[in-house]
Amino acid sequence: MAKVKIGLLGGGRIGRLHGTNLQNFVPDAEVVVLADPFLNDEMAAWAESIGIAKCTKEADEVFADPNVDAVFICSSTNTHAEFIIKAAKAGKAIFCEKPIATEIPDIKEALAAVDEAGVKLQVGFVRRFDRNHKAVRDVVASGELGKPYVVKVCSRDPEGPPMAYVKVSGGIYKDMTIHDFDMVRYLAGCEVTEVYAAGTVLTDPGYADYNDVDTTIITLKFENGAIGVIDNCRTAPYGYDQRVEVHCEKGCVQDNNNLENQAFISTGDGVKSAKPTWFFLERYNDAFVEEEKEFIDCIINDKPTPVNGNDGLQPVRIAIAAGKSLAEGRPVKLEEIEG
Amino acid sequence: MAKVKIGLLGGGRIGRLHGTNLQNFVPDAEVVVLADPFLNDEMAAWAESIGIAKCTKEADEVFADPNVDAVFICSSTNTHAEFIIKAAKAGKAIFCEKPIATEIPDIKEALAAVDEAGVKLQVGFVRRFDRNHKAVRDVVASGELGKPYVVKVCSRDPEGPPMAYVKVSGGIYKDMTIHDFDMVRYLAGCEVTEVYAAGTVLTDPGYADYNDVDTTIITLKFENGAIGVIDNCRTAPYGYDQRVEVHCEKGCVQDNNNLENQAFISTGDGVKSAKPTWFFLERYNDAFVEEEKEFIDCIINDKPTPVNGNDGLQPVRIAIAAGKSLAEGRPVKLEEIEG
Amino acid sequence: MAKVKIGLLGGGRIGRLHGTNLQNFVPDAEVVVLADPFLNDEMAAWAESIGIAKCTKEADEVFADPNVDAVFICSSTNTHAEFIIKAAKAGKAIFCEKPIATEIPDIKEALAAVDEAGVKLQVGFVRRFDRNHKAVRDVVASGELGKPYVVKVCSRDPEGPPMAYVKVSGGIYKDMTIHDFDMVRYLAGCEVTEVYAAGTVLTDPGYADYNDVDTTIITLKFENGAIGVIDNCRTAPYGYDQRVEVHCEKGCVQDNNNLENQAFISTGDGVKSAKPTWFFLERYNDAFVEEEKEFIDCIINDKPTPVNGNDGLQPVRIAIAAGKSLAEGRPVKLEEIEG
Amino acid sequence: MAKVKIGLLGGGRIGRLHGTNLQNFVPDAEVVVLADPFLNDEMAAWAESIGIAKCTKEADEVFADPNVDAVFICSSTNTHAEFIIKAAKAGKAIFCEKPIATEIPDIKEALAAVDEAGVKLQVGFVRRFDRNHKAVRDVVASGELGKPYVVKVCSRDPEGPPMAYVKVSGGIYKDMTIHDFDMVRYLAGCEVTEVYAAGTVLTDPGYADYNDVDTTIITLKFENGAIGVIDNCRTAPYGYDQRVEVHCEKGCVQDNNNLENQAFISTGDGVKSAKPTWFFLERYNDAFVEEEKEFIDCIINDKPTPVNGNDGLQPVRIAIAAGKSLAEGRPVKLEEIEG
Repeated sequence: MAKVKIGLLGGGRIGRLHGTNLQNFVPDAEVVVLADPFLNDEMAAWAESIGIAKCTKEADEVFADPNVDAVFICSSTNTHAEFIIKAAKAGKAIFCEKPIATEIPDIKEALAAVDEAGVKLQVGFVRRFDRNHKAVRDVVASGELGKPYVVKVCSRDPEGPPMAYVKVSGGIYKDMTIHDFDMVRYLAGCEVTEVYAAGTVLTDPGYADYNDVDTTIITLKFENGAIGVIDNCRTAPYGYDQRVEVHCEKGCVQDNNNLENQAFISTGDGVKSAKPTWFFLERYNDAFVEEEKEFIDCIINDKPTPVNGNDGLQPVRIAIAAGKSLAEGRPVKLEEIEG
Repeated sequence: MAKVKIGLLGGGRIGRLHGTNLQNFVPDAEVVVLADPFLNDEMAAWAESIGIAKCTKEADEVFADPNVDAVFICSSTNTHAEFIIKAAKAGKAIFCEKPIATEIPDIKEALAAVDEAGVKLQVGFVRRFDRNHKAVRDVVASGELGKPYVVKVCSRDPEGPPMAYVKVSGGIYKDMTIHDFDMVRYLAGCEVTEVYAAGTVLTDPGYADYNDVDTTIITLKFENGAIGVIDNCRTAPYGYDQRVEVHCEKGCVQDNNNLENQAFISTGDGVKSAKPTWFFLERYNDAFVEEEKEFIDCIINDKPTPVNGNDGLQPVRIAIAAGKSLAEGRPVKLEEIEG
Repeated sequence: MAKVKIGLLGGGRIGRLHGTNLQNFVPDAEVVVLADPFLNDEMAAWAESIGIAKCTKEADEVFADPNVDAVFICSSTNTHAEFIIKAAKAGKAIFCEKPIATEIPDIKEALAAVDEAGVKLQVGFVRRFDRNHKAVRDVVASGELGKPYVVKVCSRDPEGPPMAYVKVSGGIYKDMTIHDFDMVRYLAGCEVTEVYAAGTVLTDPGYADYNDVDTTIITLKFENGAIGVIDNCRTAPYGYDQRVEVHCEKGCVQDNNNLENQAFISTGDGVKSAKPTWFFLERYNDAFVEEEKEFIDCIINDKPTPVNGNDGLQPVRIAIAAGKSLAEGRPVKLEEIEG
Repeated sequence: MAKVKIGLLGGGRIGRLHGTNLQNFVPDAEVVVLADPFLNDEMAAWAESIGIAKCTKEADEVFADPNVDAVFICSSTNTHAEFIIKAAKAGKAIFCEKPIATEIPDIKEALAAVDEAGVKLQVGFVRRFDRNHKAVRDVVASGELGKPYVVKVCSRDPEGPPMAYVKVSGGIYKDMTIHDFDMVRYLAGCEVTEVYAAGTVLTDPGYADYNDVDTTIITLKFENGAIGVIDNCRTAPYGYDQRVEVHCEKGCVQDNNNLENQAFISTGDGVKSAKPTWFFLERYNDAFVEEEKEFIDCIINDKPTPVNGNDGLQPVRIAIAAGKSLAEGRPVKLEEIEG
C-alpha cells in the first residue's frame, strides 16, 4: 500500500514532535501538508527541513485536500472538537491530541460526527504506549495475576507550569490528572464509578488565585470492584515521577521510573545513581512514536484504534467529577456527570 | 546500674518474642517473672529455658513484686488498660503492646493513671524501629528535603487472619491500619486532621459477614498542610509489603521491602529475584529488639519514651474516624472524635 | 555553516544504520552519495527512501567528489585501511568503523596517511558514547574517587555468530573483546601494559575447529598502576550483558544493563523483571547517534575527534597480545607487540 | 536428645561470637567450658554472663572432659592443627575456625588424625552459610541453568588491617582470598586446577615491605571446564563488597550486597541509597549462626558436615599456588602444589 498521507494541524511543540516522528520513524506515513494560523518563515523552514511539501494558514485547505488521508490535530485545545467534526465530514482518519474538549457536550458532538462519518479516531493518551506502563497493563489484562484489587498511579511533574498557563488550564484535573484518569481505566480494564478528591496548595500560593490545587490525592472505585488511588504533585525536583501499580489476587505488578543512566557510585556517603528522566519529552519519547505507528497501522489494516472516542470522553468526565468532589468535599459518582 | 527487672505479662506469641529478645539481646534487662492466666507446663518450660526464674497465673503478683522495675504487657487486648492502671499505681515502668484499648475512654483512663503516677509508658508500635522506615523518617525530620507534601504508606499482609479473629478484631482500621495510622504520624511529624476511607471486600466474602473490609484506601490531611494516603490489603501472596514514601519540597524519600536474599537469576524469561520477607516476625525481627532496647534505655537514663501515651491514643482516634468515614461515605474530621 | 556532506561507503547493516541516523538525527549532516560494490535495486531503493541522491558501485567516485566533505567507511574490514588512505589523500574527514585493520602494519600505514593529510579520523568504538559507560568514565576522569585501582568489564553476547563468520572473524580478541580493550583504555584513561588471557570452548565445540575460544578472562595491567579484568562469553540467553566497573581509592563506580522495561511482578515465586535489551542494536542505538553527532561537531568546530587513530591502533595491539598470551600460556607485555 | 555440650577454645573476638551465638540461638547446643590461656577476670565475667559454667587456662582440660561432646577451636591459627589432633584423639566433634593451618603438611597431619578417630570436623568457611551466596550456589547446583561457564567473586574489605597484622598474616592469598578460594569451589561444585595471579600495591605502600599485595586479580580454571576470576582489594570505603556470579549455559545467577537499609532519597542531585553493610560481622552475622546450627545438627543427626577437612585443605593449596603464580609471573597448576 502507498503511504498514508497526513495533514498536520498545528506547528507548535507537540505538532512538530508528531511531524518529525512521522517523517523519520513511521515508514508508512508521510506528512504532506502543515496548517497553522500562525505560520511564519521559521515554521515553514522547519516544515521544509523535514520534507513537508506544503504549508498553509488555513486548516480548511487540509480538510478539502483529496490527497490527505488522515489528520493530526495538534492545534490549541479549543479547536479540537471543531477540527474533528470537519475532518470527519471530509472522511479523514483523525488523530487528536488530548483532550478532545474540556466540556462534555463539545466532546459528544465531536464523537457523534465521527460515528456518523464512520472514520477512525485516536486520542493522544500517549502514556498507554510507554513500554513500562504497557508491560504492567499487559500483565493485568492477561489475567495471570487474577482479579485486580488496587490500582495505583503516582504522577508528579518536575516543575509547575507558568501561572499564565494555570489560569487557562482548566485546573489540575483536566490538565494534569487527566492522563492518570486515562491510565487507571487502561490498567483496570473498566470504567471508574466514583471518585473522591482531596487537594491542597503547597508548591506555589499562586494556584489558589485560580481556585486550583497543586497537590492532590484521588480515590477511585471501579466497575470491576477494584479500588484505586492517584497522587499528583506539580513539582518534583528529581524529575518526572511516573509510576503505576496494580495489586491483584495472585500478585502485584508495578513499574519504576526510567533513570537518566544506569551508572551508580558507591562511597562512604552511600550509593548514588542517576535521577529519573526529566519530563514527558524524555520519558515518553519512544511512546509518541509507538502511538503514531499504531494509528497508521490501524488505518492501513482497518483495525479499531487503541484509544478511541470513548477513551477521550471518560477521562474528562472523571476530571469533572474530581473537581466537583474537591469543591463539595464528598465522593462523587460518575453517574452524576453527563456522559 | 543493675539490670532492669522485668515482669512479663502474657506468655503467648508476642510475649515470648519480647521475653526471648529481652533475655538474649538486651543486656541491661532481665525478665524475672512471667504471669499468664493460661500458664501450663509447656509455657513454664519455655520460661525456664530462657532463664525466667518465676512463673505465676496471677498478674497481681507481678504488680505487687517490689523486685519488678518494669512490665511488658503482652496479654490480650482487653486487659491492657487495666494492667496499665495497676502497673502505674505500683510505680512500674510500662511497655504495652498496641493497642492500649479499642475505645477512647478506656485509653484515657489508662493514660490518666500513668500521668498521675508519673511512670514511663511506651506503646508497642514496633514499625517505628524498623531501620528502613526510620531512615525515611529521619530524612524528613532533618528538614533537608524541606516541607512534606505527600505522605504515603502501602501495607499489605501476606495472608488474611482466620475469620474467628476477624470477628473480634475490631475491624481492619483498629486491627491492621492502626500501624499505618501510627506510621503516618511518625513520618509527617504532626497530627492527622481529617480522613476519608474507601473500602471493599475482595479477598474473602467472609469479611462482609462482620461488616468489615479487606481492601481499603484512606486519604489523610495533616496539621502541617501535607496530605497523605494509606492503602491496605489483607492478602499479598508475595509476602509482607511494607513501603513508605514522603514527597517533599526538595525531593522524595521512600523505602523498598527487605527481600529474602539478594540473589537474582537472569534467563531468557527475565530477571528473577527473591520476594519480600514473609510477615512481621521476619520483617520486624530486628525492630522488636530495637524498641525493647530503647525502652530499657529510657528507664536507665530517665528519658521520655519514643512512643508515648498520646502515640497510643491518636491512632485509635484515627481508626475510629476511618470507620465512621467508611460507614457514612464522607470525610471525617478528627475533631469529631473524642480525644 | 552549511551541512557536512557525507559519502557513505557500504550499504550493509552498519552502513544503513549510520546512513539512516545521519539523515534523521544529525541535523548538520547530509548523506549525498552511497558507494557499494554490491549495489542493487533494493539498496538503491533504501538509499532513495532516506533521501540519498546518488548511488554508485565505485568508491573512487566518492573520493573524487568535491562535494563530499567526509566519508563513513562501513564497508568490509579488509577495505578499511585502503579507503582511509584514499579518503585522506582526497582531504576528506573520515569516520571508520572498527577495526581499521586486523594487522598492525596496515593500521600504521593508514594512520600515516591520515597524519600526512592532516584530516580528521574517528574510529567507530561506539560504546564510549553509551550513556551508562560514559557516566562511569566521567566519574573516574573527574578524579572525585581518587586513583583507579581495578577496572572491570563484563561483556557477553546474547548468541554466538555463525561458524562461517567465526572462521573469518580473526578470533574472539580481534572480533569481540576488541570493544572491551577499547573500553578499559577509555575507563582507565591510560594504556594497557600487560595482558594475560585464559580461554576455553564451552558454548559450541565448533570454535575449536578455528583455534578460537568462546569464553575468556583477560587480566590487564595499566600504565597508571591499576589492574583490570575483562570476562567475555559468546552466549548469554538473557540478552546483551554489558557492565563496567572501576574501583577507586575513594569509592567504586559501575553500571547496570538497560532492561527492556522497568515493570516488575511480585508473586509467591519471587519478583520478576524484564531482561536486558537483546543486542548491540538495541543497547547502543542511542550511542550510534551520539558518536555521529560528535564526529560532525568535530568537523564543524574543528575539534579533535573523541576516538582517534591511536585509539584505533591500541586495541588491536592488545588483542594480538591477548592471542599470544592464550597461545603461549603466559602474560604478554604490550611492548612485545609492534606498535 | 540432650543438648550437645561444647568446649570453647579461645575467648577472643571470634570465640565470643561463637559462644554467644551458641548460647542464644542454637537451642540444641550448650557451651559448658571455656579454655583460653589469656583468661582473665573480664573474660571470665563475659563467660558467666552468657551462662558458661566453667573457665580454665588449660585447653587440655577441655579435651579430657568427658562431659564435652564437641569443641569450637577459636584460638590463634598456630594452635588449630594441634587442637584438632587432640580433640580427635579425645573423640570430640570439631568445629575449627579457618584456616586449619597455613602449611599443607600440618593440615594433612590434622586431617589424618580426624580420619583415624572418625570424628566430625567442620571448618569455619562462614560465607557458604550467607543466604545470598547460598541462593546463588543452590541455583547452580540445581542444574536449572545448565553447565557453569564463568565463576566470579568480588571481595573487598572496607579497610585494611594494621601493618602489624599484615606482617604475620601469611599474605593476602592465605589471609583474605582464602575465603574466595573456598567460595569458588563451593559455587563451581568442583576443584580448581590452575591459577594465575596478578597483584599490586595501591592502597598502602606498607604492604610492599612484607612482600605482600593489597589489590589482586586471580584467574582460575576448574575441573568441570569452567573458568573463573576473583578480584580483591584491601580497601573499599563504601563498605564490605561481597558479590558472586556464575554465568551458565542457560542464564546467569549473581547476588548484590546487603545494604544498611532500603531507604532511598530522590533529589535534583540523583537517587541516593544506603551503602553496603560495613564488614563481616554485619554481613555474615546470620551466617555464623547458620553454620553453628548446621554443625550441631550434623552431630545430632549423624550427618556429614557441610564444610569438611578437604574443604579446609584445598583453599590453602590454591592460596599457595596463587602466591607462587604472583612470584613467578606464570599460571600455576594445582598439581604442582602438595595436596
